[in-house]
Amino acid sequence: MKILISQESLNATLATVARAVSTKNTIPVLSGVYLSARGGELTIRATDMELAIEAVTPCEVISEGETVLPARYFADLIRRIPYGNIELSVDYHNHVATLRWGRSQYVIHGFAADQFPTLPDVDGASAFTVKQSLLRDLLRQTTFAAGHDESKPWLTGVLFKLRDDLLTGTATDGIRIAYAEAAAENAQGHSFSVIIPSRSLNEVTRLLTGDEDSQVNVAVTANQVFFDLGNTRVISRLLEGQYPDVMRLVPQHYPTEAVLPGAEFMEALERATLITKDGAVKISFQTDKVTITSNTPEVGQVYEELAVTSMAGDPLDIGFNARYLLDFLKVLEEKQFRFQCSGSRNPARLMPADSSQFLYVVLPLITL
Amino acid sequence: MKILISQESLNATLATVARAVSTKNTIPVLSGVYLSARGGELTIRATDMELAIEAVTPCEVISEGETVLPARYFADLIRRIPYGNIELSVDYHNHVATLRWGRSQYVIHGFAADQFPTLPDVDGASAFTVKQSLLRDLLRQTTFAAGHDESKPWLTGVLFKLRDDLLTGTATDGIRIAYAEAAAENAQGHSFSVIIPSRSLNEVTRLLTGDEDSQVNVAVTANQVFFDLGNTRVISRLLEGQYPDVMRLVPQHYPTEAVLPGAEFMEALERATLITKDGAVKISFQTDKVTITSNTPEVGQVYEELAVTSMAGDPLDIGFNARYLLDFLKVLEEKQFRFQCSGSRNPARLMPADSSQFLYVVLPLITL
Repeated sequence: MKILISQESLNATLATVARAVSTKNTIPVLSGVYLSARGGELTIRATDMELAIEAVTPCEVISEGETVLPARYFADLIRRIPYGNIELSVDYHNHVATLRWGRSQYVIHGFAADQFPTLPDVDGASAFTVKQSLLRDLLRQTTFAAGHDESKPWLTGVLFKLRDDLLTGTATDGIRIAYAEAAAENAQGHSFSVIIPSRSLNEVTRLLTGDEDSQVNVAVTANQVFFDLGNTRVISRLLEGQYPDVMRLVPQHYPTEAVLPGAEFMEALERATLITKDGAVKISFQTDKVTITSNTPEVGQVYEELAVTSMAGDPLDIGFNARYLLDFLKVLEEKQFRFQCSGSRNPARLMPADSSQFLYVVLPLITL
Repeated sequence: MKILISQESLNATLATVARAVSTKNTIPVLSGVYLSARGGELTIRATDMELAIEAVTPCEVISEGETVLPARYFADLIRRIPYGNIELSVDYHNHVATLRWGRSQYVIHGFAADQFPTLPDVDGASAFTVKQSLLRDLLRQTTFAAGHDESKPWLTGVLFKLRDDLLTGTATDGIRIAYAEAAAENAQGHSFSVIIPSRSLNEVTRLLTGDEDSQVNVAVTANQVFFDLGNTRVISRLLEGQYPDVMRLVPQHYPTEAVLPGAEFMEALERATLITKDGAVKISFQTDKVTITSNTPEVGQVYEELAVTSMAGDPLDIGFNARYLLDFLKVLEEKQFRFQCSGSRNPARLMPADSSQFLYVVLPLITL
């Protein structure tokens, strides 16, 4: 294997792929990135056996071949090489790669390429396409709410459903639920319900652009999900388990409802949490305003008052852990939002004021 | 005490002072900042008993007085308050401060102001002035080289000498020495030799501007040094001990000398250290080039070649810990530098190519 490639291409492709490199040291070759040079292209791949990322970039292939190089050394070095062409050649006898640019020459010890796992096949998958911007919104609006409790592994993922050309995502950690929808295309009547690990979805989110015109092809098999973004593919295993029907627990009626400015509410809550050690705040819905208060002995007291855009229904005092409200406000992107309460002991519902594509349901603090 | 002050002024002044707040929890009141409102000014002060920072800002004083507020809560909160005026009032009965702005109101529990230590007096000090930009350069060029070994506390500081209107700084950790000079003014024949803790000097450096026209007044007593920057004062205790005459150990003759480009040399060394785990590199001075090489078994090999701006004297192979060379190159600011060697077992000397105001002396690695 011998190629000539620009530092910019190699660096960008490595940065895309390297996030899937295993951080556990159980199988040495998984600490590496797999490189394959064929037909004018370099393919780079990394996997930790749960998640795989593969990206392709054009290069000048002088002789075809494969190798595996230690991801950290290789990516750190490439990042610090000046702009310009790099020659990468591999000696198969001892799995050693030589990098040359300018008047510099580095030798890096690699692994035998045939030790690296192959990727699963997409045959027989249910497939559809979705706009990258819509999928990105759906993932940002749900993934953060997934759980971290490994004793219920299915709750550490997002429930992904496709039915009637509508893609939905649901995530919950038992305290709050995030739900979002996106229009699917070319689904050809496919429907499925799978649980995708949050970590994989965070990596997909990172790679998606906000570009309205770009599509991503999604394919689902019995055990895997494939996200094809064009030059980059992400493959993740699915989580097993019976996802609970959490939307069933959400109240249908909300006697108290306010529309509030997202940015100001977030700033006020962020100030409140500085003084409020455990995050417990009281939200008071009044006729023409909403207040945030808390009292932490030995530290101090908080009083924040916000003008409401609109207010309907009954006045109410209700307690929340501010962190759960902030998680919603951070993905709301400063818009106006609807805050609906069904008494002080039932879940509250929050959503953008101008859309029901994104819903957030959160339990109040009972002991306020 | 009751004042009206802009968020911008209060936030900036707190940020200046808060770095001196004690991070150890031995004396509770030292976790606070002292505030004094008198005659149209708010003075804020913090100290950990080794270092004190005091800054003054104008404000509307409605009633004069003092208080001490917990630094972290207070500074974090002020940082997150929107632009505009803040009213701060203190109830002396229970040491509680009330902050009001817009429609918000926060209460913070403070300390009795008379518990806060007073600052030492500058009476009888030897004083001089120095341009802020020159003092900043001198501190940047020396402080990094001080030691961290608390069993030799005098080496954890910088030796500051004033003699014949020349201010010099010397720092060493036993492996390398950094030495720099700056012109002093208004010294009125004063001369002294004191050791100032690195931590205090790092805080002074942070506050100094690059402004050519600003001056800083420095005063030295038997136990303290005072840096007066106008609206901000830094006061530090001095370190005790007999500073060694390290410049005596520096070779006088350098049979090998190259002038090299600082930026390229730094980039090449930074790449080399990625592959070279313990930082050991070999520098080879040749007729028309300098090379950096290393060989780390199981990882890889480095070869970097640099064109010299000029080269004089004997070819030489010499080993260094790259980290010590990088420390020099980082404060050199990408200029050309002179690299002088006196054989492979004696200290080497580095300096900017166009100046002898800054010198750096470093021991080679003997076991290369």
